Amino acid sequence: MVRSDISGIFPFISEDEVFLLSKEASRAHELLESGSGAGGEYAGWVRLPEKTDTGELERILTAAERIKKSSDTLVVIGIGGSYLGARAAIELLNSPEHNLVKKDAPTVIFAGNNLSGSYLKRMLDFAYDRDFSVNVISKSGTTTEPAVAFRFFRELLVEKYGAAGARERIFATTDRSHGALRKMADGAGYETFAVPEDIGGRYSVLTAVGLLPIAAAGIDIKRILKGARLEREALSERSEKNDAWRYAMARQALYRSGKKIEILACFEPEFRYMAEWWKQLFGESEGKNGKGLFPASVEYTADLHSMGQYVQDGERLLLETFVSFDSKDELKMPGDGKNLDGLNYLTGRSLSDINRAALKATKEAHIKGGVPCIELSTGEINEETFGALVYFFEFACGLSGYMGGVNPFDQPGVEEYKRNMFRLLGKPGF
Amino acid sequence: MVRSDISGIFPFISEDEVFLLSKEASRAHELLESGSGAGGEYAGWVRLPEKTDTGELERILTAAERIKKSSDTLVVIGIGGSYLGARAAIELLNSPEHNLVKKDAPTVIFAGNNLSGSYLKRMLDFAYDRDFSVNVISKSGTTTEPAVAFRFFRELLVEKYGAAGARERIFATTDRSHGALRKMADGAGYETFAVPEDIGGRYSVLTAVGLLPIAAAGIDIKRILKGARLEREALSERSEKNDAWRYAMARQALYRSGKKIEILACFEPEFRYMAEWWKQLFGESEGKNGKGLFPASVEYTADLHSMGQYVQDGERLLLETFVSFDSKDELKMPGDGKNLDGLNYLTGRSLSDINRAALKATKEAHIKGGVPCIELSTGEINEETFGALVYFFEFACGLSGYMGGVNPFDQPGVEEYKRNMFRLLGKPGF
Repeated sequence: MVRSDISGIFPFISEDEVFLLSKEASRAHELLESGSGAGGEYAGWVRLPEKTDTGELERILTAAERIKKSSDTLVVIGIGGSYLGARAAIELLNSPEHNLVKKDAPTVIFAGNNLSGSYLKRMLDFAYDRDFSVNVISKSGTTTEPAVAFRFFRELLVEKYGAAGARERIFATTDRSHGALRKMADGAGYETFAVPEDIGGRYSVLTAVGLLPIAAAGIDIKRILKGARLEREALSERSEKNDAWRYAMARQALYRSGKKIEILACFEPEFRYMAEWWKQLFGESEGKNGKGLFPASVEYTADLHSMGQYVQDGERLLLETFVSFDSKDELKMPGDGKNLDGLNYLTGRSLSDINRAALKATKEAHIKGGVPCIELSTGEINEETFGALVYFFEFACGLSGYMGGVNPFDQPGVEEYKRNMFRLLGKPGF
Repeated sequence: MVRSDISGIFPFISEDEVFLLSKEASRAHELLESGSGAGGEYAGWVRLPEKTDTGELERILTAAERIKKSSDTLVVIGIGGSYLGARAAIELLNSPEHNLVKKDAPTVIFAGNNLSGSYLKRMLDFAYDRDFSVNVISKSGTTTEPAVAFRFFRELLVEKYGAAGARERIFATTDRSHGALRKMADGAGYETFAVPEDIGGRYSVLTAVGLLPIAAAGIDIKRILKGARLEREALSERSEKNDAWRYAMARQALYRSGKKIEILACFEPEFRYMAEWWKQLFGESEGKNGKGLFPASVEYTADLHSMGQYVQDGERLLLETFVSFDSKDELKMPGDGKNLDGLNYLTGRSLSDINRAALKATKEAHIKGGVPCIELSTGEINEETFGALVYFFEFACGLSGYMGGVNPFDQPGVEEYKRNMFRLLGKPGF
């Protein structure tokens, strides 16, 4: 499944320095499996792939079919872990332009992930002209951004379809028994799906949080879960051969040697939101107590013509992790009699060959420039690869967090701006 | 026009440390104006706002009208500085969803900014069903990414419209007299626009490079140029009151005090590609000789629920620059009798009020967490603000580059991956 090639870090750090960490990796592995580490009550995602609730899964598939039948648009309301995973899957597996192309599945738009009035208005205007359903995703139901958006979209649904019609078009993914959205959903009779108590937002994409919108977008979620299951099996190995160990050990060794920024690089634009999801996963899990690699991402080759100069030749604080896929496109370079652009040496070559050469060339260049490079390879982009990558990153992140001495499952720093905002807005009690 | 508030850095650095740099800023200002600094032959953008070529401008407007009439889609082929500025303007001024909403102007899609075959295929498939024109933007005409894409789209145009029809639908922005694309354009009779010799890619958005696609997207480019002109006037002041000086001095002082990463933060999703443009501008200008702040960007409040934890509480290597706009939306929070979500304290408040409180709250929280904060404010989002911001950032970047002792107008590090790639692909001569 996911393979970690860490050979590109050894010009900068010795194998000893890296593999000495295998004891730490082993201990971290045990903490994840036993749930006895810091924040272990939120390590439910570890065993998720092998204990899928088939009843819930069937309900998700049925709801997705209902949405597809009744709606040409699905509005997904959620923020952070309540939307990044779904968006990552839809952009990776359908495409970032999924809303531009004709397709069987509904258009998916995202709301409630910011407080921009102009953005919300555009989403409302867009939905106004269409037949839409809403999947509102919030554990508590009181997080400001999604709660604000949900008020507007609920009102619009009632205006368009009446109270009964609106009820049929709202799907709430929330806590099983507590919280405002649970109360609201039970009171109004929305269909609901559970955010498991033992899984935090950024680890929740393989629960109903991610699976319902992904399924509604026409993606085969059973294959995603299969990929995660296979990856979990592959990562059961407790040795240096474990690819998640290798990634976590490489990151930790480089961080301890003074690297401060990890750049996640991919050569396929479909990967953009996967990188955003990765940034939350690692940034929120490790960025605490004054510690942690700063997670950044680039889209190559585009960003070789923007951030490339810095990566090649700026401050030497960087490590770079490439995610490579086997491409399946069959575009072949056309020839040109005049060859004014000098490209005839590429005539007949497939774009994926050229793109693969660009990746290899970039890795070589950056290593030469002083950047340790890791390569994660996964095969073709498909549902199984997505599931595998998700589980791989989650597991590596849990390992790396424990190795770094932090609780990888809390996010205490997120509260500070909220408290200030409630005070500034005059929320009762603040 | 653009105002720099640097008060949020003084909990971390003394006013003396910052304002001592005014001598350096003054010298850098002189180097920019005189063109006598390193790379001064590429400082043509400094005086661009006051010497717009009105003949060229009228030709741009006429070409934009021709595109609008003949085409429902414009394919912009370019990479780095040859597309980021145009995309930034179109997303900021029309919206990131500009292709989802009905409008008078053509749909604009971007190609030739990567080597992904699946991306290129999607763009070709999309264009296939539409009436499209192409604006190919490349100084040399031999940069691999745009040259590859141009071969495919040229072929498609000829297939759809014949050689004569294709000629009418290709607009080439390239060197005035040299290079492959110039030869190709002159030979085939394409309408052409000039990439000025004395302006590098990342400083070129206010030339035909940016202006033609922006005008074709239905945006008033004369107002953009007016904004840049007014900003240039505002930045003529040679003292600490100069807002670009203040921004450049604050960045340099913080960098010298040990900060390594600058995060550009905005609370409007429309800003995303403006941040990408900013990352190229600063990253390519300053990221060299082992130096430079690492440029990163976040979209708040979304990213407060992903990168927020790190910014609040991770490694203290960060400075943060907020770009704030006056919002013009008039969405007001609806009330709710049951108030289960607890949001009734916001009833009747405008979203822009709430978003502004979020910005203030975030800045306060991050300062408390140990992050020096700068705020750049600009008024409403409109054409003039865009032009002003572009010029402000360019000027501040030129200043900061010279203050940091680098040539802010070259990008030698971009060649390394290209050489490797040519060798791997067997390009003659490599």
